[in-house]
Amino acid sequence: MDQALDQARAAAGRGEVPVGAVIVDGATGAVLAAQGNRVLEHKDPSAHAEMLVIRQAAGKIANERLDGCDIYVTLEPCPMCAQAISFARLRRLYYGAADPKGGGVAHGPRIFSQPTCHHRPEILDDISAREAGNILRDFFKDRR
Amino acid sequence: MDQALDQARAAAGRGEVPVGAVIVDGATGAVLAAQGNRVLEHKDPSAHAEMLVIRQAAGKIANERLDGCDIYVTLEPCPMCAQAISFARLRRLYYGAADPKGGGVAHGPRIFSQPTCHHRPEILDDISAREAGNILRDFFKDRR
Repeated sequence: MDQALDQARAAAGRGEVPVGAVIVDGATGAVLAAQGNRVLEHKDPSAHAEMLVIRQAAGKIANERLDGCDIYVTLEPCPMCAQAISFARLRRLYYGAADPKGGGVAHGPRIFSQPTCHHRPEILDDISAREAGNILRDFFKDRR
Repeated sequence: MDQALDQARAAAGRGEVPVGAVIVDGATGAVLAAQGNRVLEHKDPSAHAEMLVIRQAAGKIANERLDGCDIYVTLEPCPMCAQAISFARLRRLYYGAADPKGGGVAHGPRIFSQPTCHHRPEILDDISAREAGNILRDFFKDRR
C-alpha cells in the first residue's frame, strides 16, 4: 500500500485526483504494475489508477485474467473499476479510504454484491485509510 | 448502429465476443471512433468495445469529456462501460440487445439509476436489437 500511496502523491503532483494503485503477484510478491490516476494526462475518462494497473499487469503476463494477483488501491474503487477488478479475476482487493460519493464497493451500486457479478475478490478495506484520505483532502483543499 | 453491427461481426471473426460500438459527434454526425471488443487480442479484461471507443474519441478531440457526443452499442453495456459512459459525459446511449446476465443499464446495478451517478445520458434501447442478438447467438452456437 505504501507504493500505492506514493503513486497517489505523484498523481497529485501532476494535478490529477490523487489515487494510486498497485497489482502484486500473490505467489511471488512481485509488483506487476503501479500507477496513479492519469485522466487529464491521457485525455481519457477511464484512466483511473486501477484501470491502468489492470491493463499493464495483464499485458505483462499476457493474460486477460489476473488469477492469484492482488490489487492495492488508496481509495474505494468506483463502479467502473470494481467491475474491471471482477473481470480481471483479481484475488484480493485491498483499499484505503472509503468513498461514499463515488465508490462502488461499499457504496452506490455495490458491484460485488450484485447477483450478476460473477467474480468477487476477497475485500480488505480501511488499509492506510487515514494517509490515503489526507492526500485527497490536501489536494482538494489546495485547489479551492 | 449499422457501423456498430459491422464492428460486432468483425469481432466475431477475431474470436472475440461480438459487441461493437461507435461514437458520433452529435452536432456534425461525424464518426469519432468505431471499435469491436478486443479483450483477447489486447490481453486486457477492460477492452470492451465501449471502453475502446471512449478512449479513442476522447483522444481524438483531446478532451476527457465527450459532451454532445452519442454512443451506439450493439449490446446493453456492462456496469464498467456504463460508468465509463457516465464519466465521459456522453449525451445519448443507443443500444441494441438487452443483457439480463451482464448488463448494467436496465439490469444488475442499473448504474444510471444510482443516486451517486452524476451524469446520466439519454437512453434509447432496443435499436437493431434482433440483429445484434443474432450475431451473439450465432457466435456462441458455433463455439459449443
